[in-house]
Amino acid sequence: MNTIKNRLEDFKKILNQKNIDFYIVPTADFHNSEYVSDYFKVREYLSGFTGSNGTIVISQTETGLWTDGRYFVQADKELKDSGVVLYKMGEEGVPTIEEYLSQNVKEGQTIGFDGRVVNASFGIKLENLFADRNVSFAYESDMVNEIWTDRPAFPASKIWIVDEKNCGQSVPQKLEIVRTKMKENNAAYLLISKLDDIMWLYNVRAADVECNPVALSYTFISDKEAVFFVQEQALTDEVKEYFANYDIIIKGYDEIKTYLESYDFAGDVWCSLDDINYLLYKTVKEHLDKINDSDDKNKLKIYEDVNPTALLKAVKNPVELNNIRDCYLKDSVVLTKFLFWMKENAGKVKMDEISVAKKLDEMRSEIDGFLDLSFPTISAYRENAAMAHYSATEEEKKEILPEGLYLVDSGGQYVNGTTDVTRTIALGKVTEDEKKHFTKVASSMLRLADAKFLYGCTGSNVDIIARQPLWDCYIDYKHGTGHGIGYILNVHEGPQNIRWRFVKGSGDVVLEEGMIVSDEPGIYIEGSHGIRTENIVEVVKETKNEYGQFMGFRFLTYVPIDLDVIDTKYMEEPDIDKLNKYHEEVYNKLSPYFEGEELEMLKKSTRKIFSEK
Amino acid sequence: MNTIKNRLEDFKKILNQKNIDFYIVPTADFHNSEYVSDYFKVREYLSGFTGSNGTIVISQTETGLWTDGRYFVQADKELKDSGVVLYKMGEEGVPTIEEYLSQNVKEGQTIGFDGRVVNASFGIKLENLFADRNVSFAYESDMVNEIWTDRPAFPASKIWIVDEKNCGQSVPQKLEIVRTKMKENNAAYLLISKLDDIMWLYNVRAADVECNPVALSYTFISDKEAVFFVQEQALTDEVKEYFANYDIIIKGYDEIKTYLESYDFAGDVWCSLDDINYLLYKTVKEHLDKINDSDDKNKLKIYEDVNPTALLKAVKNPVELNNIRDCYLKDSVVLTKFLFWMKENAGKVKMDEISVAKKLDEMRSEIDGFLDLSFPTISAYRENAAMAHYSATEEEKKEILPEGLYLVDSGGQYVNGTTDVTRTIALGKVTEDEKKHFTKVASSMLRLADAKFLYGCTGSNVDIIARQPLWDCYIDYKHGTGHGIGYILNVHEGPQNIRWRFVKGSGDVVLEEGMIVSDEPGIYIEGSHGIRTENIVEVVKETKNEYGQFMGFRFLTYVPIDLDVIDTKYMEEPDIDKLNKYHEEVYNKLSPYFEGEELEMLKKSTRKIFSEK
Repeated sequence: MNTIKNRLEDFKKILNQKNIDFYIVPTADFHNSEYVSDYFKVREYLSGFTGSNGTIVISQTETGLWTDGRYFVQADKELKDSGVVLYKMGEEGVPTIEEYLSQNVKEGQTIGFDGRVVNASFGIKLENLFADRNVSFAYESDMVNEIWTDRPAFPASKIWIVDEKNCGQSVPQKLEIVRTKMKENNAAYLLISKLDDIMWLYNVRAADVECNPVALSYTFISDKEAVFFVQEQALTDEVKEYFANYDIIIKGYDEIKTYLESYDFAGDVWCSLDDINYLLYKTVKEHLDKINDSDDKNKLKIYEDVNPTALLKAVKNPVELNNIRDCYLKDSVVLTKFLFWMKENAGKVKMDEISVAKKLDEMRSEIDGFLDLSFPTISAYRENAAMAHYSATEEEKKEILPEGLYLVDSGGQYVNGTTDVTRTIALGKVTEDEKKHFTKVASSMLRLADAKFLYGCTGSNVDIIARQPLWDCYIDYKHGTGHGIGYILNVHEGPQNIRWRFVKGSGDVVLEEGMIVSDEPGIYIEGSHGIRTENIVEVVKETKNEYGQFMGFRFLTYVPIDLDVIDTKYMEEPDIDKLNKYHEEVYNKLSPYFEGEELEMLKKSTRKIFSEK
Repeated sequence: MNTIKNRLEDFKKILNQKNIDFYIVPTADFHNSEYVSDYFKVREYLSGFTGSNGTIVISQTETGLWTDGRYFVQADKELKDSGVVLYKMGEEGVPTIEEYLSQNVKEGQTIGFDGRVVNASFGIKLENLFADRNVSFAYESDMVNEIWTDRPAFPASKIWIVDEKNCGQSVPQKLEIVRTKMKENNAAYLLISKLDDIMWLYNVRAADVECNPVALSYTFISDKEAVFFVQEQALTDEVKEYFANYDIIIKGYDEIKTYLESYDFAGDVWCSLDDINYLLYKTVKEHLDKINDSDDKNKLKIYEDVNPTALLKAVKNPVELNNIRDCYLKDSVVLTKFLFWMKENAGKVKMDEISVAKKLDEMRSEIDGFLDLSFPTISAYRENAAMAHYSATEEEKKEILPEGLYLVDSGGQYVNGTTDVTRTIALGKVTEDEKKHFTKVASSMLRLADAKFLYGCTGSNVDIIARQPLWDCYIDYKHGTGHGIGYILNVHEGPQNIRWRFVKGSGDVVLEEGMIVSDEPGIYIEGSHGIRTENIVEVVKETKNEYGQFMGFRFLTYVPIDLDVIDTKYMEEPDIDKLNKYHEEVYNKLSPYFEGEELEMLKKSTRKIFSEK
């Protein structure tokens, strides 16, 4: 019998014993992190589906998996023989999880989930969905533990302190600003569970989450005290002393719940409901309600908003920016050398998607200050690149030949920054469509990077500048144009982004000087080819005059755009100028790091091109 | 003694008698209309300031006028010797009205205003501002009536019925959709006070507001009944019969308050708080509270949202669109002939800003189906055009000479539509800067009109396409790029618009097929020149494919863009193509209406131009 079937049968017995009718397993750790360590891969353990996004709902009669369009093919394959039913999110006629539960959960039944891996927003949505019905929730325990006997260890890496000269802002300075923001919003307390926010605040890092240099932790801040909840194993004596010096109280990672349960609240508590888990939310909520009930005068509440740390962290300070610029330059040098090697050796050396990714990862690891990759390298040849989140496996990797397009999206964690960059290159003959699409994508990226805009503009204002060359041909890419990037932190970081669809809480974030964002348009033709060109840019001030403060972008990424795939007949004259200007900058920045044959290649790759018109 | 001083002295005596410490007079009728008839010009009567926007606050010690940047010069002049203090809104260090009141109103004092000319949103803002203080509000009467003895008559024009063949949708059909929207939002009742919404719903028009063909009225709709509150004088027998045929109950305009006070509400009441006046809001609110108090089970409330009629009215139906297209063509013909006449006769015939506006208004009035202007014609020569809302007066009008730029922004109300169009033309020699700015503005207008975008985009997504050619030169226009336009209704109509700054309730309105919007970038150089080029476009569907439904715009306005002020050295090649394409269309559309010398002028004005590069 299928392993997954066995596991699900065992698990259903437990659900039966505990009188739980529907059990929900999302993909998250206790902090709603984007990536999760193996310990938290419960959904994968129970369903066999390995994609990065998916939720299962288990009942005695059915196990359903909900995932999005990126993973339909993969999920179909991985769920085979498991009996798990695939619900293709976004497809017509397919119910959402909420709709499914609403239709199937009966009066008197119980819905279970581990309240620590479901964020408060989702939990509240469920509460509202069943507000008028007699349905119970069981969210206080992780029931999978009982059957998952060989579960990987709970992550517990050592915390390290970011060198003071690389921070640009001390912990007391950061705490002071955070407390000012708390006052401005009439919040007496702030509870943060978002790991990169906590790391930023305390100028520390660790390695508890794959590719994200963070430690599993919480922090609770009031006007007077700051408490850092973390595993004892994460702490060295040096780190203990460091926190003690700042009068930050250290408590055990698991003590957060009891701490909040017994805290004598005398004001509102700031929580970001998309980040904080449902269990902690309920703990605070129920405790506040109890205090309010005890005396009619109390009206304590949870103040719901994005953490103040999110915006503070997103606007990089001058020290961080200096480091980031240097970090991106060194990273660009290595990627350029790798791409030159690819172009030279395709067809000469035997290579496949995984072997070349390994080579790039090794080259990057030799850069001074390298810590880790910032995400698993996406190495995709030909039609595989049409899947925006493709991940090659040893079983199904593609051999690379001296023809067609190759896409590589990669980045590193360094002591002086976090990088992210995508290039697509020709390894030989390419089709006319590939040239057209590649040229349009290059124009898109360059136009956005060159945009001038008045202070106050958001990502949703400027997004169309990147899309226009594609929309003019009735082509689109089904992902955002850009995301923020952390500083020795998560490669995807909010609150700003560059997307045209308005999303509450992010669509209205103004692009501030010192923010860094990706600029990554693409074209994906299923079964044929995929192109993405991604530069990272920083937001800078331009002229200020009677009309206001004009803003713009400045490149951080300096990697040639493959001229072998550019055809000027698909470009407007001003776009050709932008490309030439970029390549001139690339040459000036990179040439000190190149010599001999490689320098000749750099010269050729960044040569000025002319319109044929 | 100054007339205004006298009036204010008399008025302050009344305030004293009634124990009112601060009295607020905004610029509005009972429906928060954009334009108001003379009866409602209380602020002008009390302050002497004639601008279209302004609010006065009167106390025993001071009378202050708050107005915006468009009117600082005019207000300074008009307030001279009146003793009224000008508060320049938006200037650094100048308090807002709320800040002024907050600083000056003391415990125990009373703030007065006519609750019918203040919208609910502002009234609620005041309530919140003084929630913690012992301050009273007196909003139940119009105290100016007691001193304004020669007040103009209350407007009461005759209602007329829009010919069925010009409506495209019957009243029962419209009521059905409105009731569906009410159900979707769980609102049992809908109270509309926005005049164009009411006119649209009942397919009637009148002339109670300058340039807006509306009747002062309210309507109250439940699942079963629809009540139309209107002045008896507005009704002919035909109109009475018309409403009777649709089972719409007619009640007196002044009966609305008592009707609501005694209504037996059994569900939520939908009100648009930006439109409904504070008095009606309080009437409904207090009545609902009373009902709720009478029985613990009741939880009746006001459902606050934009009227459902706003979006329905904004999306024009096929009959309306057909009429509008024809209406804009005829209007374009006349404006083009007027502009030709200007170019021919400047310097030959004596003319000034007012005399030429009169000529244009007369020419427009001869178009079949003409009803009225859609707003007072803006006729501005040279530096006067730098004031975006300039209005010439007999005392201060500019003579027009055969040199420099002339701007005219105008439109008409017709039985088949409402028009709005702006052109700037050269009457002789122009400067290099004027050419550069004119050419940039033309490119802006043409680029936006030519944009392709995915369905779901809002005005705030596409606005930057128009601004980019200007922002690239660090120039901006301090107004929106576009607004909606009514159908035989208000020339400014929501809820959609084209602006980059996010505004709650309008920034997120999707551009729908059948909406019509203006596309009117400009450049204004104080003391020198002003340029605006305004075409109206309709939103249309383009290709639909795997990426979604692509949308675009189609021109409604066909008036040449003055090639005498275009210099291709300031244009990109694709913009030259767009201009040539537009002019080809203009020629094809207009030429059937031109002959002889005028046809030759049309040919010349729409000739193909070439890049000098």
